Amino acid sequence: MPSLTFVGLGLNDERGISLHGLERARAADLVLLEHYTNVMPGLSLESLGKLVGKEIRVVGRREVEDGREILDAASRSEVALLVAGDPFVATTHVDLRLRAIKRGIRIEVVNAPSIISVAPGAVGLQNYKFGRSATITFPEPLSFVPYDVLRVNRDLRLHTLFFLDLRLEEGRFMRAGEAVRLLLEMEAQQKGGVVSEGTLMVVLARAGSPSQIVRAGRAIQLADLDFGPPPHSLIVPGRLHFMEAEALVLIAGADEDLVRGCL
Amino acid sequence: MPSLTFVGLGLNDERGISLHGLERARAADLVLLEHYTNVMPGLSLESLGKLVGKEIRVVGRREVEDGREILDAASRSEVALLVAGDPFVATTHVDLRLRAIKRGIRIEVVNAPSIISVAPGAVGLQNYKFGRSATITFPEPLSFVPYDVLRVNRDLRLHTLFFLDLRLEEGRFMRAGEAVRLLLEMEAQQKGGVVSEGTLMVVLARAGSPSQIVRAGRAIQLADLDFGPPPHSLIVPGRLHFMEAEALVLIAGADEDLVRGCL
Repeated sequence: MPSLTFVGLGLNDERGISLHGLERARAADLVLLEHYTNVMPGLSLESLGKLVGKEIRVVGRREVEDGREILDAASRSEVALLVAGDPFVATTHVDLRLRAIKRGIRIEVVNAPSIISVAPGAVGLQNYKFGRSATITFPEPLSFVPYDVLRVNRDLRLHTLFFLDLRLEEGRFMRAGEAVRLLLEMEAQQKGGVVSEGTLMVVLARAGSPSQIVRAGRAIQLADLDFGPPPHSLIVPGRLHFMEAEALVLIAGADEDLVRGCL
Repeated sequence: MPSLTFVGLGLNDERGISLHGLERARAADLVLLEHYTNVMPGLSLESLGKLVGKEIRVVGRREVEDGREILDAASRSEVALLVAGDPFVATTHVDLRLRAIKRGIRIEVVNAPSIISVAPGAVGLQNYKFGRSATITFPEPLSFVPYDVLRVNRDLRLHTLFFLDLRLEEGRFMRAGEAVRLLLEMEAQQKGGVVSEGTLMVVLARAGSPSQIVRAGRAIQLADLDFGPPPHSLIVPGRLHFMEAEALVLIAGADEDLVRGCL
């Protein structure tokens, strides 16, 4: 039956697909891969093609945003659109889905891990203690949205997860150290007393991959470290539960005195 | 090599396991399944056992919370602990992981979809517009924590995701309608002007399963509907972006006038 199935691939490589997702991809007439909204450090297109047993066509930003060709195909055959992470974290996929519904195309969804749910657990923090999340973008010009989000969360003693700018088509990604320095720059300009060089922060690099790095420390220490290839995320904890503090010491190598100050 | 691998199974059935997770379970000497922290509507233990190719032993709350037997096994053999959803959303798994680290046991993690990342996309809302989440528990006695979380998020115009009480060992789960009525009861007692019978809410039942239901409407309408078996979640939207409003109409059957009032 003609349909459009969104299949999440998770965070690292082709083996992040679920059995259900693999079944749907194998059954599809046309298999598309979109991976410009997210980086999957270990993804091999060749291995993915072998798993699925058919040719996989990579689609770019313009093709997904325009969407007409994909929707035309899905209105006469079974189309599987494979995407990095979980399908509906990116707005562009929600938009494609809404247009498909309006054209009467049958939709199916196969979920996968997303950085949103993986990040708290990866560093040992409790998800229900996170406030709103935000993206730190390249300063062209400097956007203070992340600072405002952080200010509100810090006032409420909540943790904040920051996604960092990814411009894969330009081959650029923001490193955790740059994100830390941008937050300190925002503080220097706004003087809201939200963060300082001594603030506890946690870097999460390549979440869910075998080369995942989790590192907690003072902002100024993290700013100068190299965490390797993308993607990177940054977490600024609020008030810590004692189990969270212990987790940051054991999992993220935090200094005991530093986390004790956040209890 | 002796180790403890946490493998997420996702939200619905055994086919939610990733290829990576299945490999790790197949390679393990001992495969355990913990599914008291979460409901997976379509899970068949028999099918899961066939997929993994070995006997799967179900472990209960006491065994996981105590943890000694699991850690003893993991210090001399490869143990895979299969869990509903994503492994580290439940605090009890974080605790087990920390104790494993302290005993020098090698840890591996295979992520899976969690209701936290799936819920926003399933109903068409944008994840970065969610504030803190909370659990609505059975009123024994009535806890106002969810009301306080909602008040803060509503003031900030953010969406709120509520998990609903699950007591699987007692065979009890909270239905969405009861959760709506509890929020209205909290309002009646606290009079904070946070919600009313006319407030837009969204029910998500059995997220990620073929029988998933998404339904948006006024609180008083949703309170009387039957959404079938668990698990249920409840979302109270804050201010809507126009694409979110359109999504609630197209995906969740919301009344156009109702969502227009939330733009």
